[in-house]
Amino acid sequence: MSDAYREMWRALDMDLEKHDVFLGGLPGAFSEVFLQQENRPAGMAYFDNALAEAHGGRIKEILEQKKTGRPVVGTFCVFVPEELIFAVDGISIGLCGGAQFTVPTGEQVLPRNLCPLIKSFMGFKLDRICPYFQAVDFLIGETTCDGKKKTWEILNEYVPTYVMELPQKKTEADLTLWEGEINRLKEEIERRSGQAIMAEKLAAGIKRANARRTALARLYRARQADPAPISGKDALLISQLAFFDDPERFTSQVNSLCDELEERIARGEGVAWKGTPRLLVTGTPMALPYWKLHHLVETAGAVIVGEETCTGTRYFAGQVAEDGRSVDEHLKNLARRLMAINCACFTPNKERVEDILRLAREAKADGVIYFSLQFCQPFSVEGRLVEKALQEAGLPVLRLESDYSEEDAAQLKTRIDAFLEMITA
Amino acid sequence: MSDAYREMWRALDMDLEKHDVFLGGLPGAFSEVFLQQENRPAGMAYFDNALAEAHGGRIKEILEQKKTGRPVVGTFCVFVPEELIFAVDGISIGLCGGAQFTVPTGEQVLPRNLCPLIKSFMGFKLDRICPYFQAVDFLIGETTCDGKKKTWEILNEYVPTYVMELPQKKTEADLTLWEGEINRLKEEIERRSGQAIMAEKLAAGIKRANARRTALARLYRARQADPAPISGKDALLISQLAFFDDPERFTSQVNSLCDELEERIARGEGVAWKGTPRLLVTGTPMALPYWKLHHLVETAGAVIVGEETCTGTRYFAGQVAEDGRSVDEHLKNLARRLMAINCACFTPNKERVEDILRLAREAKADGVIYFSLQFCQPFSVEGRLVEKALQEAGLPVLRLESDYSEEDAAQLKTRIDAFLEMITA
Repeated sequence: MSDAYREMWRALDMDLEKHDVFLGGLPGAFSEVFLQQENRPAGMAYFDNALAEAHGGRIKEILEQKKTGRPVVGTFCVFVPEELIFAVDGISIGLCGGAQFTVPTGEQVLPRNLCPLIKSFMGFKLDRICPYFQAVDFLIGETTCDGKKKTWEILNEYVPTYVMELPQKKTEADLTLWEGEINRLKEEIERRSGQAIMAEKLAAGIKRANARRTALARLYRARQADPAPISGKDALLISQLAFFDDPERFTSQVNSLCDELEERIARGEGVAWKGTPRLLVTGTPMALPYWKLHHLVETAGAVIVGEETCTGTRYFAGQVAEDGRSVDEHLKNLARRLMAINCACFTPNKERVEDILRLAREAKADGVIYFSLQFCQPFSVEGRLVEKALQEAGLPVLRLESDYSEEDAAQLKTRIDAFLEMITA
Repeated sequence: MSDAYREMWRALDMDLEKHDVFLGGLPGAFSEVFLQQENRPAGMAYFDNALAEAHGGRIKEILEQKKTGRPVVGTFCVFVPEELIFAVDGISIGLCGGAQFTVPTGEQVLPRNLCPLIKSFMGFKLDRICPYFQAVDFLIGETTCDGKKKTWEILNEYVPTYVMELPQKKTEADLTLWEGEINRLKEEIERRSGQAIMAEKLAAGIKRANARRTALARLYRARQADPAPISGKDALLISQLAFFDDPERFTSQVNSLCDELEERIARGEGVAWKGTPRLLVTGTPMALPYWKLHHLVETAGAVIVGEETCTGTRYFAGQVAEDGRSVDEHLKNLARRLMAINCACFTPNKERVEDILRLAREAKADGVIYFSLQFCQPFSVEGRLVEKALQEAGLPVLRLESDYSEEDAAQLKTRIDAFLEMITA
């Protein structure tokens, strides 16, 4: 696709040479991780193509929409209410960085012992190899972790970055602060887009985001079948693309895929034999193109049947109530749904344990992998409490910490093999 | 002192054997770091003794006061308003852990790649070798960083830990949340102490804490003289003891020492020759008994003339207005002083740069050492902005990151030597 889009990338002030090197590595990785799977659902063709066109066709589409006056807004976290962006016909892009390729550049302005996701997205901006980063009008950051909170101050030197303050507890006072923050974000989006946010359009934005959440929840329900009708890798790819793709098209494609998966389930057909060890993954997000853990687990003979992560259930958990009749009511409804998400950034966060136990039960998981990106302090410290609770519930847990490099792949594989042996013994 | 206090320690359920090993290492370290300094102020004798009696006489005193019904409350951060503890005749103890000795035990329940201060205090509790931890009725934690925020959940399994939410920005909405938190802390202290907090006693508590801040500010002003009348090491030790000692006695002793220092200044007398390189340290706190950086710098031929840290200026910055006439007004005054502290936990935090530039100018510093404890993300990420600002102001900066071990001492020394050579060239 390179040739067809070079002019577009050049106009976005991208580093074409570096971008070529970056893109050059992806088809091989994609083919190894995805295309060599057996019995993939036919509906994955759409998502395979969406990935292939992520830096091409999708950017072209966004730039055309941008020309008509639609704002393009980058986000990094499930706590940013995309509904407000939809309400001004904005294009919301989840800008997480999941590639080792840009980490060394990120480390030029950030400490080395910082979460790879943060170093990666910073590197994507500095390296100018992410067309989304180049196309956005502004970014919305949040204070969900120390690393991101402080990195916005640096990123803001390169692209305007507005910061929402997510509270750290879940009391009434926190809900009040958070409702205020949602209201201030609304005003910021109005100011930047030059459009007032009206109740009707916000209601439509809520419906659009709810529909996407419903479709993803349906996909996750299909994964509860034994045998699983879709691999964890494919489900992860779909979740990752949710942050980039056109929401309505994406939702419709997920629903079509679910039709296919439900037919498979009715026929008792799946991607792994019945009896294959089923694992739930819980922990930190897995941003595109991070597939390492899923690939290691699924080539070791297990199947991943759910992710309690920000690129998993935390992204689509709950629904925004659709009964709001005014902008104010809609904003309160947005705030309430978000505050119900059980992220390790809150203290205490015991409800997350309940979520994991419920998800493991629903997905008939034989074990849980607790995965933290390196230097993610909220999830790594919380790991101990989760591990204890799962052990008490009789669910085997494997705790893994990793980064985006391939250096620890052999070591991870050994630990995953031993875990699977223990589970199937 | 061991024999005289063994019964007391046993009654506190301390691990006596481990405690012996821990205490055994301290006199040698103390002698090497402190007693071999030349021309120490005579007034340091009180503080040397306070350190020697930190696990002995001071604990005995606290336990006697506790018997009369005075609550003993542990804190870990300058954002916890000790004035509220004073208002119920409580004893406030700053429980920071600054020892490598307890880090391995802390790592049994915490990730290894976490701030040594957090691992150390957790280890002090688990090892049962800190009589303060054993004597407290409860702890007050706060949400100033991810590491501490999530560690309270674990520490609370061992000792009751109440958590205050410090906001992450400094807007009006944040001040509102923070005033609410101060009010909720007041209620918690009332509940736990069984005493109502009255305006008069709170006013007295504010005066007591203000007096201590005034004395410490006076000490820091004395350090601005050239030659410096006191070493950085000694000033650091005094700051560290502020968290443990009886506040009134401590204040009086600091003032006596300042009388002596001011006489020294009048005579042009100091601990280092005029012209000795003068350095300001900025960054993370240095909890007792962490003296590594100061010792390395001052044995390399420089003198440290100020610390923009939580065990330095951030501890005593500003004053609580004394004009409050009701509990509510006092609480608002407490909230306002604390929100004016420029900690890296806030975003943005540009005022910290102004603080550092002003302190460096006032102390006639030839350079600044930006010091971060390992894995302290707020201070390490913020380091880049501070470094840039100092360089623009023509102030040489050395960025150092370290932990509590002695493993990197030689490497730090090499970097400090090179920095001093550059400054004096």
